[in-house]
Amino acid sequence: MDAHPYAPKDLSLPGFVPNLLSATTILVVFAVATIIVVSLAWFVPARFSRITRMERILICWWVFTGLTHMIVEGYFVFSPEFFKNKTGCYLAEIWKEYSKGDSRYAERDPATVALEGITAVIEGPASILAAYAIARHKSFNYVLQLAISLGQLYGCVMYYTTAILRGDGFATSTYYYYAYYVAANSPWIVIPTLISIRSWKRICGAFDGRFKRKSY
Amino acid sequence: MDAHPYAPKDLSLPGFVPNLLSATTILVVFAVATIIVVSLAWFVPARFSRITRMERILICWWVFTGLTHMIVEGYFVFSPEFFKNKTGCYLAEIWKEYSKGDSRYAERDPATVALEGITAVIEGPASILAAYAIARHKSFNYVLQLAISLGQLYGCVMYYTTAILRGDGFATSTYYYYAYYVAANSPWIVIPTLISIRSWKRICGAFDGRFKRKSY
Repeated sequence: MDAHPYAPKDLSLPGFVPNLLSATTILVVFAVATIIVVSLAWFVPARFSRITRMERILICWWVFTGLTHMIVEGYFVFSPEFFKNKTGCYLAEIWKEYSKGDSRYAERDPATVALEGITAVIEGPASILAAYAIARHKSFNYVLQLAISLGQLYGCVMYYTTAILRGDGFATSTYYYYAYYVAANSPWIVIPTLISIRSWKRICGAFDGRFKRKSY
Repeated sequence: MDAHPYAPKDLSLPGFVPNLLSATTILVVFAVATIIVVSLAWFVPARFSRITRMERILICWWVFTGLTHMIVEGYFVFSPEFFKNKTGCYLAEIWKEYSKGDSRYAERDPATVALEGITAVIEGPASILAAYAIARHKSFNYVLQLAISLGQLYGCVMYYTTAILRGDGFATSTYYYYAYYVAANSPWIVIPTLISIRSWKRICGAFDGRFKRKSY
């Protein structure tokens, strides 16, 4: 049994190094980085392309989620020993902290690693492409947004279902369960659902026009 | 250690009952059922709707894959003790036999159960809806086909990635590894890939028409 804050207590993490940054520091850095990224995504594309307010909001989301997938989740996927990190590396600190809400990250549960891998390697770059496709009015923008959003939703369903099948006992306390495991993930349920519905409707609309012209 | 044919040998399956049907019997029943289903899907919709040859092929696929998801995989999801079945129930026999290629089914690995659950409960009924949408020339037919095909591909990536992360040692022998674990799953990689590409192109084509009319 090792001295770590995670549940279950008998989880073996030899060489574990406790968080060097506080939860507040981690959150503030993430919030500041998000504000910078979203501000750039809001102002820069609009200087080069004629885009609506909704398209600007969507570009902000895709840039934010794409960078989160590639940098934050990408670090996790390729750093199996992040919990031993003693340099105070910000990305390792994020995952040491988040593991208090879901110790499967520290444990390296195969289902969690596999779905984070798909998210980081496929959905991350695809999200940046979606931002570009919206800004440039590419014909594939709706279908790409739908594909990524459905992938994110599939990932969320897998994430919670595999936890429930294993007994759902991976949070250090009720606070971490709701703050990290539930609340921190909720944007990736709500926003992909909204984008899926919007993209689906737009795609059907494009075909309705076509089918009418062809008088089906 | 129990007397079962699966790998790894130390997998605990108390109450295991060996296959009562031979592999040949299981395969022949599946083949005959498939021929009946595909024949009905080929001939029946064409009597009520003006559909092309490619649309008929797609309807056959969606009816076949939808029924497989709902009946065969649905049985697995909701029968955690299929390996104890001593009635010779055909669906239990399928999974006892398939587990020789991937013992995670008998073991009830959470990742495997979760992705089979999504496949059986969501993708199964959606596949039947896709067959209907093609036959009735619904405007949502391409987007639905794309959504299900991408879901099937996501499931396949999860399926193999979680096995590799756990060491990929779940087949009784090399024969079962290639015959069941690789070959039996390959249609669900090849066909969803082809349908995804086709649907994606059709959707972009519909928007190209639109964007041209709006002179983007």
